[in-house]
Amino acid sequence: MKVRSYIKGQWIDQGDEKELISAVTGEPVATMLEADLDYKGACEYARQNAGPALRKLSIHERAFKIKFLGQYLMERKEDYYKLSTHTGATRQDSWIDIEGGIGSMFTLSSKSRIELSDLPYHVEGDHERLSREGTFVGQHICVPRHGVAVHINAFNFPIWGMLEKLAPAIISGMPAIIKPSPTGSYLAYKVFSDMIESKLLPEGSIQFIAANKPGDLLDHLNSQDSVAFTGSASTGQKLKAHPNIVANNVRFNLEADSLNCSILGKDVTPDMEEFDLFIREVANEMTVKTGQKCTAIRRTIVPQERVDDVVEALKARLDKTTIGDPAEKETRMGPLASALQADRFEEQVSDLMEITESVYSNGKGLEGAFTDPKVLLCRQPFEVDEIHKVEAFGPMTTVMPYESNQEAIDLANKADGSLVGSLFTADDNVAREITLGCAPYHGRFMVVNRDCADESTGHGSPMPHMVHGGPGHAGGGEELGGARAVIHNMQRVALQGSPTTLTNITNQYIKGAETREAETHPFQQFFEDLKVGEARTTETHTVTEEDIERFADLSGDEFYAHTDPDAAERSLFGEIVAHGYFVLSRAAGLFVHPDEGPVILNYGLENLRFTQPVAPGDTIQAKLIVKRKTVRQKKAKDKFPFGIIYWDVEVSNQDNEIVADYTILTLIKRREVLDMDIFEEE
Amino acid sequence: MKVRSYIKGQWIDQGDEKELISAVTGEPVATMLEADLDYKGACEYARQNAGPALRKLSIHERAFKIKFLGQYLMERKEDYYKLSTHTGATRQDSWIDIEGGIGSMFTLSSKSRIELSDLPYHVEGDHERLSREGTFVGQHICVPRHGVAVHINAFNFPIWGMLEKLAPAIISGMPAIIKPSPTGSYLAYKVFSDMIESKLLPEGSIQFIAANKPGDLLDHLNSQDSVAFTGSASTGQKLKAHPNIVANNVRFNLEADSLNCSILGKDVTPDMEEFDLFIREVANEMTVKTGQKCTAIRRTIVPQERVDDVVEALKARLDKTTIGDPAEKETRMGPLASALQADRFEEQVSDLMEITESVYSNGKGLEGAFTDPKVLLCRQPFEVDEIHKVEAFGPMTTVMPYESNQEAIDLANKADGSLVGSLFTADDNVAREITLGCAPYHGRFMVVNRDCADESTGHGSPMPHMVHGGPGHAGGGEELGGARAVIHNMQRVALQGSPTTLTNITNQYIKGAETREAETHPFQQFFEDLKVGEARTTETHTVTEEDIERFADLSGDEFYAHTDPDAAERSLFGEIVAHGYFVLSRAAGLFVHPDEGPVILNYGLENLRFTQPVAPGDTIQAKLIVKRKTVRQKKAKDKFPFGIIYWDVEVSNQDNEIVADYTILTLIKRREVLDMDIFEEE
Repeated sequence: MKVRSYIKGQWIDQGDEKELISAVTGEPVATMLEADLDYKGACEYARQNAGPALRKLSIHERAFKIKFLGQYLMERKEDYYKLSTHTGATRQDSWIDIEGGIGSMFTLSSKSRIELSDLPYHVEGDHERLSREGTFVGQHICVPRHGVAVHINAFNFPIWGMLEKLAPAIISGMPAIIKPSPTGSYLAYKVFSDMIESKLLPEGSIQFIAANKPGDLLDHLNSQDSVAFTGSASTGQKLKAHPNIVANNVRFNLEADSLNCSILGKDVTPDMEEFDLFIREVANEMTVKTGQKCTAIRRTIVPQERVDDVVEALKARLDKTTIGDPAEKETRMGPLASALQADRFEEQVSDLMEITESVYSNGKGLEGAFTDPKVLLCRQPFEVDEIHKVEAFGPMTTVMPYESNQEAIDLANKADGSLVGSLFTADDNVAREITLGCAPYHGRFMVVNRDCADESTGHGSPMPHMVHGGPGHAGGGEELGGARAVIHNMQRVALQGSPTTLTNITNQYIKGAETREAETHPFQQFFEDLKVGEARTTETHTVTEEDIERFADLSGDEFYAHTDPDAAERSLFGEIVAHGYFVLSRAAGLFVHPDEGPVILNYGLENLRFTQPVAPGDTIQAKLIVKRKTVRQKKAKDKFPFGIIYWDVEVSNQDNEIVADYTILTLIKRREVLDMDIFEEE
Repeated sequence: MKVRSYIKGQWIDQGDEKELISAVTGEPVATMLEADLDYKGACEYARQNAGPALRKLSIHERAFKIKFLGQYLMERKEDYYKLSTHTGATRQDSWIDIEGGIGSMFTLSSKSRIELSDLPYHVEGDHERLSREGTFVGQHICVPRHGVAVHINAFNFPIWGMLEKLAPAIISGMPAIIKPSPTGSYLAYKVFSDMIESKLLPEGSIQFIAANKPGDLLDHLNSQDSVAFTGSASTGQKLKAHPNIVANNVRFNLEADSLNCSILGKDVTPDMEEFDLFIREVANEMTVKTGQKCTAIRRTIVPQERVDDVVEALKARLDKTTIGDPAEKETRMGPLASALQADRFEEQVSDLMEITESVYSNGKGLEGAFTDPKVLLCRQPFEVDEIHKVEAFGPMTTVMPYESNQEAIDLANKADGSLVGSLFTADDNVAREITLGCAPYHGRFMVVNRDCADESTGHGSPMPHMVHGGPGHAGGGEELGGARAVIHNMQRVALQGSPTTLTNITNQYIKGAETREAETHPFQQFFEDLKVGEARTTETHTVTEEDIERFADLSGDEFYAHTDPDAAERSLFGEIVAHGYFVLSRAAGLFVHPDEGPVILNYGLENLRFTQPVAPGDTIQAKLIVKRKTVRQKKAKDKFPFGIIYWDVEVSNQDNEIVADYTILTLIKRREVLDMDIFEEE
């Protein structure tokens, strides 16, 4: 197997050969071809070809491409499992990398379609009223940047690390250049070449660099480009301060390893479930992926009085860790990623052993990339800085005692910024105190008790729904976080102008914009035919005392302001007023078209505000305006292809005052089946 | 007047004396005392004293402090106007700095109270469901960082520049160290010393550095601190790459001057209103603040065929610019901020004049810091890079022609990142094409036509509601933007755990958490007595055919799915179903307590989803849960002190399936008047 670069639409078949070695056997798995690459040309190719092609699609269409790409890769997952063994990964380790990585594509695709606009850009939040009369307003939008996203990935998760960055970049509309770590790059290469083979993305959307270092790539980046780096803090900081990165203010996201911790609450005694859960999690985080996770628990913070119990329990559990060939079923822990990594790890651990007690090691004659889990103990954790700074990237943890909750917090925060911390406690007040104390120093913080343990996704697993990255030592960056991951890749722009102009620019109705009365009732039109800004102004209805009485009777809502004249007089309104829900219901009566038609159902309502009371004698009228549109893909179980129309509804009174203002969501049939629907049906 | 530092709770009365010169008279206005400051001590003082004091307050309480501080300063505004004249500012120029700056405090305070949690931290967005059964969930929160915010400000807006950064930092819970530019620092000093005198902020929340350069301040910053720099790109980039900033991943926000442009649409002819609006804006942006705005229009991009018209119209308008003592009523433009600034400006303009045509200059014997407006013309704007790069910081613009909309876009973007661009057009399709083309290169983009011109806040004015900052040349940073400004200063953390634990940590009800049935009906309890998680589970109601008929009749909503059995059979539901609004109304009937009590009114509803149809024979039941609480301050016109309770409402059927899920907002009376209420009443 040759690990080749793919740039400017070509596989590069020449270059210096470098053998990529199996962590298990020490034998070559593949050969990396490191060529002199035209990095400048690769950047320009992405910007000129793929960028415009991606930006023509809507965010939802790009998100569908990522979903379909995920499905394509999932069908080939067994190929990846086979290769992954050579990195030292057990089946469980590989699951995180392979299915966790592909799963991130699904989640990010789905969250983007739920939360972001079905347009090439995202219309973010409400408009801002910048003037008294409302003729000049503001609207934030997030647009695709006209650059290329450079992804420099770490060796430990060749697939997950590639896909969790790639998915948001593509959904945002940005092509990517991927530079994996050479270690394990055959795995990234295999997945990458399948993505190319799938032809699902516009050509140039992804390029691949098979190289030790990314040459002069950073010299060619401009202000529209971005870099996302995962790896060591020292390399990351060097790249972040690269003169061209600084001079062009190139966006740089840094995610570095950190000295994460897990804390055992003072309330937890060895007979409690939380104690076992804690031991299991610490041991697991040490041995999963042979401890080569930037989120692993390097520091185990336990109450002074529990140190012996914890050490003993950890020993007992770690004794059961079978070390060996990860392809074997009984193996719980494979080798480190390479012999070089093993040397580095042993060296770092021996440095730490000079200033701590070594209380556990179960290695017997391990060779090559293999190592064993090691537990250190530091009884003066406030006096020994190294245990909070030196990261030994392998199966180890340092146990350290604390006296009070505040000491536990101080120890956790002493790592000066971590990707994740966790706490095992059955006491929600301990949870509150320690979590809020640790929060400013952590990108993620997990609290485990018996109620959530079964379903917990674990200390070490960043979830695509939630942000990943931490302050300070952890790099100060932020990735993932659902739709935020996509927004991170975009440029936020504050648009200002008249509501009509901004509606025309954004293709989303902005309050105060001109509307057009629909010739055909909007409920009688198909999704495709409804245009943003199309409106229906209804007939009027004069509210009577009888209306209010009948409504109180039918709904059972006898609140004094609607039913008791004396009490109502003492109320804020000073008189009987109609129920808000009556106003809502009567408005629907005014705007609904009763006949069968393209409207399938009304499934939601948002941002309702009752802005003026409605009293008997007041005359109400509704105006329904097409606010925004989202295509929903057809699934086999759905009867019709459809889309969602968001309608702006304003209910006003005889004085043209708005009495209620809200958005309703309806499913509307589409005339046409789209390519995406068909894909979805498969 | 002595401009002194204020650190560690002390005014520093010694130091090297430096005269601060009036831009108008050339005479000294004040003396700056530049002392050897204990920067390390200042940082620690802020972190140890003010940080904890600020973090004890809720975001809303901090926002109120900023509002009250704004009111305190507004009462003293005439003092600032008097001093401001010496910086060369006319009354109009000073208005932007003084009232614009204080106005930003009001807007940011108000937006924060509307959009952010009334807690020390902000609970951001919905919870994330991370597991099938829902026992393990996620919730993002944004917490105050445990550091100090260093603000390094530019000379052109001594007050606005200070307050627009200070307000979000304080609201976020972070103390600030303010380092103004020495030029005009007497104005920042005056406002700062009034803020200290007000005693409205906890001691240590703000410190002031009277110095030319910030000494070794940056050496003492750690990972919880942040720097916000406004000024030249070269200084900004030097500070951003400072070894300690890089090593500790200190957050750094850079806002640099940029080569902003304004574009005249091809549709606009000289007889149109938009033509006059364009000329007025360009001339105005040249002369307001004597062109010393990082947002000024340095590049005037006009259709080839309009170049002569534009130049002539600009000349005519600029001829009316009275240059002189800004204290005089008829003066339209004062001097630059200093004689040094004037020398620099003249030098930069003469460099530009070598590669362009000079078509206008109205100066006659100006001296000292005074200069005159200058219009340059470049007929080959794609060939001359300097006009897109060299910023002459004074009253000048370069006119450049374009042929097509795409050329206009390319010229606008050729500055490689701007704070703001604008477009004058009467054609919304031109607006759409050019705006979306320019968006990735701009932090803000304004479209002006006759409909919005009267109320437009202008090309040059960042609004506190909207983000300020642009990509690339403009620094790549982002400030302001309403509540975003506060979030920028905070640490986002992904919390994970059981819904009950996370509810207890965040003090906001998260779906699936345990609830407690209220002993007293929640509608009979005061705001203070209602606890998050307190619930009322109602009686049940079995929906009948008669209910649906009566509701159709009363509301007028005769949609076939509720009224026509044959059509309903053909629908998605296959049978007659109840109106969604009936379900909503009947649920209210189940949970409302009819008697007079602390509930003032139901004023809104959010995030409603109808998740299952309700058919005749189905039995519904509602559960009302206190989700979150926000104190609203009393205003003199309000009858009662009150707060807002957000209630989570779940309506379920006889199979325990949720049929509707939403949040309602009610105003509830408080028992007690708070200190903040009394302040508000004044």
